[in-house]
Amino acid sequence: MNEFELIARLTRSLPVNAAVVTGVGDDCAVLDLGVPDRLVLFKTDAVVEGVHFTSATPPEKIGRKALARCLSDIAAMAGTPTAALVTLALPEKFDPEFVAKIYDGLNALAEQYGVAVVGGETTTNPGRILISISLLGTVPRGRQVLRGGAKVGDAIFVTGELGGSLAGRHLEFEPRLAEARWLADHFSLHALLDLSDGLAGDLGHILNASRVGAEILKSAVPVSRAAKLAARGNSSARPPFVAALADGEDFELLFTVASRDAVKLLDAWKKKFPGLKLSCIGRIVAGGGILIRDRHGAHKLNAHGYVHFA
Amino acid sequence: MNEFELIARLTRSLPVNAAVVTGVGDDCAVLDLGVPDRLVLFKTDAVVEGVHFTSATPPEKIGRKALARCLSDIAAMAGTPTAALVTLALPEKFDPEFVAKIYDGLNALAEQYGVAVVGGETTTNPGRILISISLLGTVPRGRQVLRGGAKVGDAIFVTGELGGSLAGRHLEFEPRLAEARWLADHFSLHALLDLSDGLAGDLGHILNASRVGAEILKSAVPVSRAAKLAARGNSSARPPFVAALADGEDFELLFTVASRDAVKLLDAWKKKFPGLKLSCIGRIVAGGGILIRDRHGAHKLNAHGYVHFA
Repeated sequence: MNEFELIARLTRSLPVNAAVVTGVGDDCAVLDLGVPDRLVLFKTDAVVEGVHFTSATPPEKIGRKALARCLSDIAAMAGTPTAALVTLALPEKFDPEFVAKIYDGLNALAEQYGVAVVGGETTTNPGRILISISLLGTVPRGRQVLRGGAKVGDAIFVTGELGGSLAGRHLEFEPRLAEARWLADHFSLHALLDLSDGLAGDLGHILNASRVGAEILKSAVPVSRAAKLAARGNSSARPPFVAALADGEDFELLFTVASRDAVKLLDAWKKKFPGLKLSCIGRIVAGGGILIRDRHGAHKLNAHGYVHFA
Repeated sequence: MNEFELIARLTRSLPVNAAVVTGVGDDCAVLDLGVPDRLVLFKTDAVVEGVHFTSATPPEKIGRKALARCLSDIAAMAGTPTAALVTLALPEKFDPEFVAKIYDGLNALAEQYGVAVVGGETTTNPGRILISISLLGTVPRGRQVLRGGAKVGDAIFVTGELGGSLAGRHLEFEPRLAEARWLADHFSLHALLDLSDGLAGDLGHILNASRVGAEILKSAVPVSRAAKLAARGNSSARPPFVAALADGEDFELLFTVASRDAVKLLDAWKKKFPGLKLSCIGRIVAGGGILIRDRHGAHKLNAHGYVHFA
């Protein structure tokens, strides 16, 4: 059994009950717990030392990132976060001041977004720090936006700029909660997620779930300054456009709307969020996979996301 | 800063909001998400290889235990579990069949108790397996039972038999969900929790939260066969009564009710749950701490729970 077969086996046989609106496979689980006008969102996400941060990362930023990633998943459903639990797995010898600072960073972000921290636990994990956040949120009934609703002809939008997040942004990004709620309140979003694996991979999630393809205009993809700087300083670095497609940890919103809404949406966005770029990067097409169009024509992106552009 | 000062600092400054009914310090967080007749329970709990199970533990039992511990916390609020998320942190090289069997054990228990498994994630944790379960449940408004309501004169009850759980029961226990719901539906429980740290420690949690003391009748404490067998076979093992006080991982219910309800409750219990022992082990008294009464008199239990009896 390989890893994909494993995931298929695990998710095929999961127990369900009448509370489940959306289970495995989207940014959050969606549950109907009987709140008259709202559905409940439920998510966990873990960060691990050596994978998502290093032993040199300031502890406040570790705590901040752990919560921010989960908040971004609530944004990806157009929801509002409510309450978090914190599981902190620590080596047997740890510095209490370090742990207190992890919480300081986490709590500051929670306060900023009105999230209650209602408990959790510390447990032993010899060798490295692991923080798992469990987050509850809500969304007005019918306003949750899944990955599987993209339609042929839709315009594809992305917020902010992509690539190079590991240079620093991955520790400091703002989850796009207000933006996603505003979008879902004012437009009919067909598909929405937050970019964690990189544009190529995450757009692939929308396409697979929606059984459609996408054509992306290379010149329209917003490449971050960090990705450009990394490429300039280092000949072995990814070219900036490849970084924008594949770096991951951008935590920007990727969504589709009917093409007739595209211009109106861009205009309204500029008034509402003048400080945050919104880019229309292409359109949903029939078939599957991603075509990248540049001045030389259209190229099919392979499964690894960036090989054609290396 | 020592560990207790750390916990005090961490829990003093946690962000709250209007949804929080009960935050840190009880078996679950209790939230008001606007369900008309119910409150929401929210809990996480982690098991770690080398701490809660060994590399020799059958994988089905690892998964089962991870979920059962969380279910026991829902029982400890007199609640009903609804949906779980599973965070599985694995070494880089892992056997997919092993992971599938962890899920098999977890899913079977979830099915048994009507719990949906709505997602989760796998992440890397070099060196050992860690499973964190996040669980949602509900409880009728006003029916949740906290730790802080024990009153002087209350009778103290415990289900099942205590001690020796690590001989096998910790991998196979049934969370007392039906029992706790029935108790809360039919009697006014003043305080309730599930025994995870051992009777001495967990009764201490009720006493501290309720600002009372307890007098326990030594001969009334139900000692498990496993604890007796362990002491018989090994002169360095804990005496059985000490095991019952201090072993932990019993996952039985510990609760208090007004003394006038005690006999009626015992009678009704025997009809409803004839296969599960219920013992009245003592009473709540003024002051603090635990007194153990035997034929020689009453002895104060010290902070470590069992030194007087070793």
